[in-house]
Amino acid sequence: MEIEQDSKPKILIIFAHPYPQQSRVNRPLLEEAQRIPEVEIIDLYEQYPDFYIDIPAEQRRLTTADLIIFHHPFYWYSAPSLLKHWQDMVLEERFALNEGGYALRGKKLMSMVTVGHSEQSYQLDGYDRFPIDHFLLPYEQMAFHCGMQYLPPFVVYSAHRITESEIAIQACNYRQHLLSYLSNIDNE
Amino acid sequence: MEIEQDSKPKILIIFAHPYPQQSRVNRPLLEEAQRIPEVEIIDLYEQYPDFYIDIPAEQRRLTTADLIIFHHPFYWYSAPSLLKHWQDMVLEERFALNEGGYALRGKKLMSMVTVGHSEQSYQLDGYDRFPIDHFLLPYEQMAFHCGMQYLPPFVVYSAHRITESEIAIQACNYRQHLLSYLSNIDNE
Repeated sequence: MEIEQDSKPKILIIFAHPYPQQSRVNRPLLEEAQRIPEVEIIDLYEQYPDFYIDIPAEQRRLTTADLIIFHHPFYWYSAPSLLKHWQDMVLEERFALNEGGYALRGKKLMSMVTVGHSEQSYQLDGYDRFPIDHFLLPYEQMAFHCGMQYLPPFVVYSAHRITESEIAIQACNYRQHLLSYLSNIDNE
Repeated sequence: MEIEQDSKPKILIIFAHPYPQQSRVNRPLLEEAQRIPEVEIIDLYEQYPDFYIDIPAEQRRLTTADLIIFHHPFYWYSAPSLLKHWQDMVLEERFALNEGGYALRGKKLMSMVTVGHSEQSYQLDGYDRFPIDHFLLPYEQMAFHCGMQYLPPFVVYSAHRITESEIAIQACNYRQHLLSYLSNIDNE
């Protein structure tokens, strides 16, 4: 008998924040996501403070996920370094690419990003000069290269300034976004 | 009496390659660059194999440089993780940004990147779908954010396939590129 749970769509959130205790926004969003049974969260900086990543364990986790989320604050217009290290170590060629691998083919990738500046700043005439998806291009193309579908990012702007109630709304939106994803998968 | 050497324009190459012994291209290019007296090279993976970066030492090095080069192979359309870690740790707000810092203002930043795919692949109708400067946008905007001038990247395409003589030509071009930069600065 097949165990039904194994066939359920699963969301794997790969969370990368070197100072989560300083994070006003990421933690509440994660907590809302965690209320969904199909969501698994891996806290990279908690799990691998010495940057020594358990590659086989991470690869196993990925193979059972349907949607993979890179959840992190923006550090220099990209992820904190441990997520890049995870990419470099875990998504090795023989696992993710053409040498008999393509273990991620058909899965989805999404970025969930908190940024300090406002949405207006991430415009051609704003201080950050480009919409945020331009900065996320390395992730989009990585997904493409691995045969994954890249979903539009979930972004929380003005993370240093938004109020507690705005954070609560964003956390609720995040959870709904994930639930809606699961519901669409169920109906396919 | 001022020591003349201190006023010379200086190029700081921040080299990031986790497996330099496997690198056919980066090492010859570095060696050509190293022949220029005004060039200083820091090999991040050699210096910081445990990812424990000496932040004050790195900041001091930066303040005396005029042109800073991020020299690395492309890993997932970006730098290997230790360079990102260097960015996250060394370019902290109070050093590089507005809180009395802006230590990098007026300096130049350039990427020197080796990529496996061809230049044709880095086109809108190619496999990599975008010109390489689109993937380098996080570096360009980081430079802008720090008050630096971002120079066009020096890129070696098809790094896995080019011949020994093509590598030698590229290494020579790289050296000439740096010499030409120094010469222009001297004439300013």
